[in-house]
Amino acid sequence: MNFSIIAYIIGWILNCEAAIMILPCITAIVYRESQLRAFLITMALCLALGIPLVSRSPKNRFFFIREGFVAVALSWIVLSIMGSLPFLISGTIPNVIDALFETVSGFTTTGASILPAVEPLPRSILFWRSFTHWIGGMGVLVFILAILPMTGGSQMSLMKAESPGPSVSKLMPRVQSTAKILYVIYFCMTILEIIFLLIGHMPLFDALTTAFGTAGTGGFGIKNDSIAGYSTYIQVVVTIFMILFGINFGLYFLLISKKIKQAFALEEVRWYLSIILISIFIITLNIRGLYPSLGEAVNHASFQVGSIITTTGFATTDFNNWNQVSRSILVILMFIGACAGSTGGGIKVSRLIIAVRTVKKELHQYIHPRSVKKVTIDGKPVEHEVVRATNVFLVSYMLIFVFSVLLISFDGHDMITNFTSVAATLNNIGPGLELVGPTGNFGIFSIGAKIVLIFDMLAGRLEIFPLLLLFVPEAWRKF
Amino acid sequence: MNFSIIAYIIGWILNCEAAIMILPCITAIVYRESQLRAFLITMALCLALGIPLVSRSPKNRFFFIREGFVAVALSWIVLSIMGSLPFLISGTIPNVIDALFETVSGFTTTGASILPAVEPLPRSILFWRSFTHWIGGMGVLVFILAILPMTGGSQMSLMKAESPGPSVSKLMPRVQSTAKILYVIYFCMTILEIIFLLIGHMPLFDALTTAFGTAGTGGFGIKNDSIAGYSTYIQVVVTIFMILFGINFGLYFLLISKKIKQAFALEEVRWYLSIILISIFIITLNIRGLYPSLGEAVNHASFQVGSIITTTGFATTDFNNWNQVSRSILVILMFIGACAGSTGGGIKVSRLIIAVRTVKKELHQYIHPRSVKKVTIDGKPVEHEVVRATNVFLVSYMLIFVFSVLLISFDGHDMITNFTSVAATLNNIGPGLELVGPTGNFGIFSIGAKIVLIFDMLAGRLEIFPLLLLFVPEAWRKF
Repeated sequence: MNFSIIAYIIGWILNCEAAIMILPCITAIVYRESQLRAFLITMALCLALGIPLVSRSPKNRFFFIREGFVAVALSWIVLSIMGSLPFLISGTIPNVIDALFETVSGFTTTGASILPAVEPLPRSILFWRSFTHWIGGMGVLVFILAILPMTGGSQMSLMKAESPGPSVSKLMPRVQSTAKILYVIYFCMTILEIIFLLIGHMPLFDALTTAFGTAGTGGFGIKNDSIAGYSTYIQVVVTIFMILFGINFGLYFLLISKKIKQAFALEEVRWYLSIILISIFIITLNIRGLYPSLGEAVNHASFQVGSIITTTGFATTDFNNWNQVSRSILVILMFIGACAGSTGGGIKVSRLIIAVRTVKKELHQYIHPRSVKKVTIDGKPVEHEVVRATNVFLVSYMLIFVFSVLLISFDGHDMITNFTSVAATLNNIGPGLELVGPTGNFGIFSIGAKIVLIFDMLAGRLEIFPLLLLFVPEAWRKF
Repeated sequence: MNFSIIAYIIGWILNCEAAIMILPCITAIVYRESQLRAFLITMALCLALGIPLVSRSPKNRFFFIREGFVAVALSWIVLSIMGSLPFLISGTIPNVIDALFETVSGFTTTGASILPAVEPLPRSILFWRSFTHWIGGMGVLVFILAILPMTGGSQMSLMKAESPGPSVSKLMPRVQSTAKILYVIYFCMTILEIIFLLIGHMPLFDALTTAFGTAGTGGFGIKNDSIAGYSTYIQVVVTIFMILFGINFGLYFLLISKKIKQAFALEEVRWYLSIILISIFIITLNIRGLYPSLGEAVNHASFQVGSIITTTGFATTDFNNWNQVSRSILVILMFIGACAGSTGGGIKVSRLIIAVRTVKKELHQYIHPRSVKKVTIDGKPVEHEVVRATNVFLVSYMLIFVFSVLLISFDGHDMITNFTSVAATLNNIGPGLELVGPTGNFGIFSIGAKIVLIFDMLAGRLEIFPLLLLFVPEAWRKF
């Protein structure tokens, strides 16, 4: 294990975190809030640890996938621990585990909260809470890759560990250029959403935080009723942008490169949009009777479907009270998740496509035992390695899921609460059903259960293996 | 597709079914029941269809895996349709779908019933209901392989399609000898259980039906309260035999062959017994307060754990009322299931082992990218093909599970009922939780939902692919 390069990367993570805390500081100054102190202390601590770590340039800049995975997992943990300090120091969330839960939930773009009400929180804290979504959405390692000249070494393994999906599509030959383009697209789309929200007369502070929550597919709101209190126009804007941020960013790159035909042929995006349309259609029929007009039913169905499949977790209505069919569809969407290469979580649509096609291929093989048919996406054969990794991912995912539900059940809550709280954290969504539904919160759980859910949020965001690797003693051996 | 060999096999299935109906006929004669007529009519129908089919010897006895799978799937469907006729003709279950549900539940050794009470049923009908478990447990195709001289052709594909588990262990070089040995072990163990039950002063009729339900890991009882009304001795005997029938029959073959050391080294059996012991331990602690003595808590915990992991489905207490941890453990055991090569259902312990080791191997590969470590069981490397098939099985299993829950939810029952009713049928267990708990029944579902559950029971027993293949039009093309 090349420890020096890992320390170096973590150093940069800490410095970055100090830098991005300038934004909540500005917020605190604007609103004259005393929480400014908490942010300044945290920034000082980050720099005090970060600067010495980056000053010693690593002897050996070469690293394998092992170092890449460990570096990413540790970075996220360090990021979350330091990020929780403003909550702790300011006293807004006095409990250590609660503060960590909230921060991990922010960075992993889960949006599950232990707070019963968010409106009493100071503005700077609310801003930080939402901003962690924006940072976590595209990934802080990707950001560092974009700005830091990391010559040599397999930077791709950092990218691979942090980017969601079964395989990373290199938009450009160089990893750094890819990372830059991703952040540029991400930044521009966020600005675009803010503009659309402001046009709908949303206050600037609300527009910023809502856009952060949408862009990162996070889901932390600044109102107790999430997005329910805003106008229909704003709900529609958020719906559209949630769905846009759940699309593979490769599509936007193709659009920018004027490869329009290629962009609209992407199978993952077609499946994703079809699943959304079918779900909205069925749910609208199913909940029609609960709302005064068809338009309202369509609006609520679209918002909730968009929110859940992209794993954002905003809500405009308490879907826990919907009929069974709609609830079942939402739970299924929780698992499907967004497109690979988006900011969304879940299993990912491309993995679903690979899974369905693997089953089809298996049936085909029983009919033609000697044929060598490959699983294809977008007309191109999927590498054997990717198919294998997808299957292994799904199996690991199931094992972690089952084990988590078992551990959580020691708290004694009902089975739907347990099941959906794990589903909502492992898939980085936020709200589940019953006690953790849109009107509930995760404060009901014991410390042990919260630690399990923190693990699940990180496992979900990093797609399991980087986090699991931390627990393999062999990974820490010097080679 | 070699249709003539498929017709030939189905002909034998029909003749066999007529033959085994002699037993319920004898029961009807002994208890002077009018249902004798229903069985005689069914037998006549089976023979009327079966004899012409077997009289034309197939031109070409060679068949591929495709024919094997289709033959097995069709055989089970034909077996179930004909097997439901006694219920229909006698009027004990007047509805066609209900009668089919009950029969499929019997043959697939599920034990899920649409009947609110079984005690009013005539003895001969109860006997037939339980006997379908015994036939389905080891498989009727395996039986035909044992008695029918099928020269040429890949008989192994029949065996593969009907025997549960990721790979078939050929106990003997010849498929026919393997099939014979399996049936001899099965028969002797059933007799042994009957003797032990009779020693506990259980009436002969009860002993026979209970043994059939245990041996096939079925779960149909002849009392409304399942096994709860019998003595503790009898409950203990049933517990032990359920667990024994859930063990890979390869173990018994090794014992007979005096390979004691090899037998006790079988990893799957060790995992299976460990899971059982750990589950009993945790559940006992968890339910201790619900029962007057520790002994009673241990007895109920052991019985229910044995019943659920082996996918039998007998009950001595209403575990739906247990605490959340115990309920969660039971739901997890539902999915794990018994050993491969046993009469039990579920995902199977060996697949769990392969899944866990695949994840371990993946982690190992991140640390040593160039190492070529293989997944092993019992010290021997598992063939790549088996690992791949296991992963594909798990993925198909998940897809069918999710899709079934969605379809069932249109009935409007609560989520736990929907979830566990699919779990209980796809894993061939019987009872689930809430409305389909030990005191409930599957009569609550609509016809559409029942058809979905019938599909799930067959898919579970045949391990998905043989049944799915029926729905691929290409499989039916003549080659």
